Amino acid sequence: MHVVPFKKSRIMDAYALVRNCSLFADLSDDHLTMIAENTQHLVEPKGKILFLHGDEAHYCYLMLHGWIKLFRETMDGTEAVFDVVTKGHIFGQFAIFNHNIHDYTAQTIEAIGALLIPTNILQRLVTQDQRFALNMLHHMASHQRMQTDEIEHLALQSAPQRIGCFLLRLCKSARHTHPTESIELQLPYDKTLIASRLGMKAETFSRALAKLKEETGISIKGSTITVHGTDSLSIYSCATCSNQFPCT
Amino acid sequence: MHVVPFKKSRIMDAYALVRNCSLFADLSDDHLTMIAENTQHLVEPKGKILFLHGDEAHYCYLMLHGWIKLFRETMDGTEAVFDVVTKGHIFGQFAIFNHNIHDYTAQTIEAIGALLIPTNILQRLVTQDQRFALNMLHHMASHQRMQTDEIEHLALQSAPQRIGCFLLRLCKSARHTHPTESIELQLPYDKTLIASRLGMKAETFSRALAKLKEETGISIKGSTITVHGTDSLSIYSCATCSNQFPCT
Repeated sequence: MHVVPFKKSRIMDAYALVRNCSLFADLSDDHLTMIAENTQHLVEPKGKILFLHGDEAHYCYLMLHGWIKLFRETMDGTEAVFDVVTKGHIFGQFAIFNHNIHDYTAQTIEAIGALLIPTNILQRLVTQDQRFALNMLHHMASHQRMQTDEIEHLALQSAPQRIGCFLLRLCKSARHTHPTESIELQLPYDKTLIASRLGMKAETFSRALAKLKEETGISIKGSTITVHGTDSLSIYSCATCSNQFPCT
Repeated sequence: MHVVPFKKSRIMDAYALVRNCSLFADLSDDHLTMIAENTQHLVEPKGKILFLHGDEAHYCYLMLHGWIKLFRETMDGTEAVFDVVTKGHIFGQFAIFNHNIHDYTAQTIEAIGALLIPTNILQRLVTQDQRFALNMLHHMASHQRMQTDEIEHLALQSAPQRIGCFLLRLCKSARHTHPTESIELQLPYDKTLIASRLGMKAETFSRALAKLKEETGISIKGSTITVHGTDSLSIYSCATCSNQFPCT
């Protein structure tokens, strides 16, 4: 593990980063300082396993840059990818409610930087600071709602619709929700990983992307996809969804 | 809504029922009594909508008997069934972290009895009682782990494997985990609903059940299924799962 300890002068940087994370919003200065003082700066290269499903949890990770894959490996070696996260996301934090055991594996898919926050500090705060316990509840509830949406999508959307939904979320991240104006999107990571993230095999992804192009008129050039307004995608993808674009 | 108010003499019954629910474990007598005193007894016939996805939440429901379907309806009228719950289960409680809005619809699939617990009491307790906030966190984390398993299954298991997994859970509920001894299982609700619960269409369910019979040697007679030991089912279904039977 490549840990770069913060110098005294850098603790304020960690303080600012931690304070910006919604999980730690509204904490007292004392508690924020306590977290910042115990936080380390992690840098890791591509392909590094940070922890394995079933490992004891020592830290949670607040991402500064790069991408991380959160997944489980099944008995026959297939990967179920639950999320692919980057800057501003936190992971590993829920282990404190799971006997301090990580519920999935975390691996870098490119070089990353992250803040390492000891889980025993979270554990202490959640039992001592009612405000933090409430923050954690709202944070976990928000994660739960995303999982509920995910289950709905996996159960009801076809493979091309799931890709359309993924592209709509990229449009939303790029603050482009115009029904007819075009936007050029860069896929954030490689297509094999997007396929796993959407619960489909790589070969299904290729066929499904071709079908999506046929149905909605998107243009595809390598990892660049041009969406000619969100309308055609949302009409096609949101037909089998209880939500409507731009969804929460 | 058919509410039968508890008589004074019955408040102790409500008290005992509430105390047995893990969400309320370890609460002070005062708080348990406060919940019990504000609880009503709901009885409803088959087919009754208790609340709709998007409705404001006034109550959460602690099931006493009967079955409830928790689901969302998509724009094209298809249902995504998240859970089918019975005695001892609680639902509607997470709305207090969602601007007091229900995140799914709840409908009875047969006559039910339930305790109606006002959500404003949960809201008050979670902000005032650190112990209850911690209970709620553990309760929500446990729900989150089930959802994570569900996402893994939907992404990786085939339809026959998902049915096999469902039958293995029935074996586990019946405390039958013997690798080779037979057990006769009654499907707890109708096959169309099981299909929806497992994220598949009714016609897929029929084909998948036939395939599961072929692969694992189960016997099927109407809604009675005989599993000749859990080994054949677990070898088949858990091959594409990160867990092993009997899983947690």
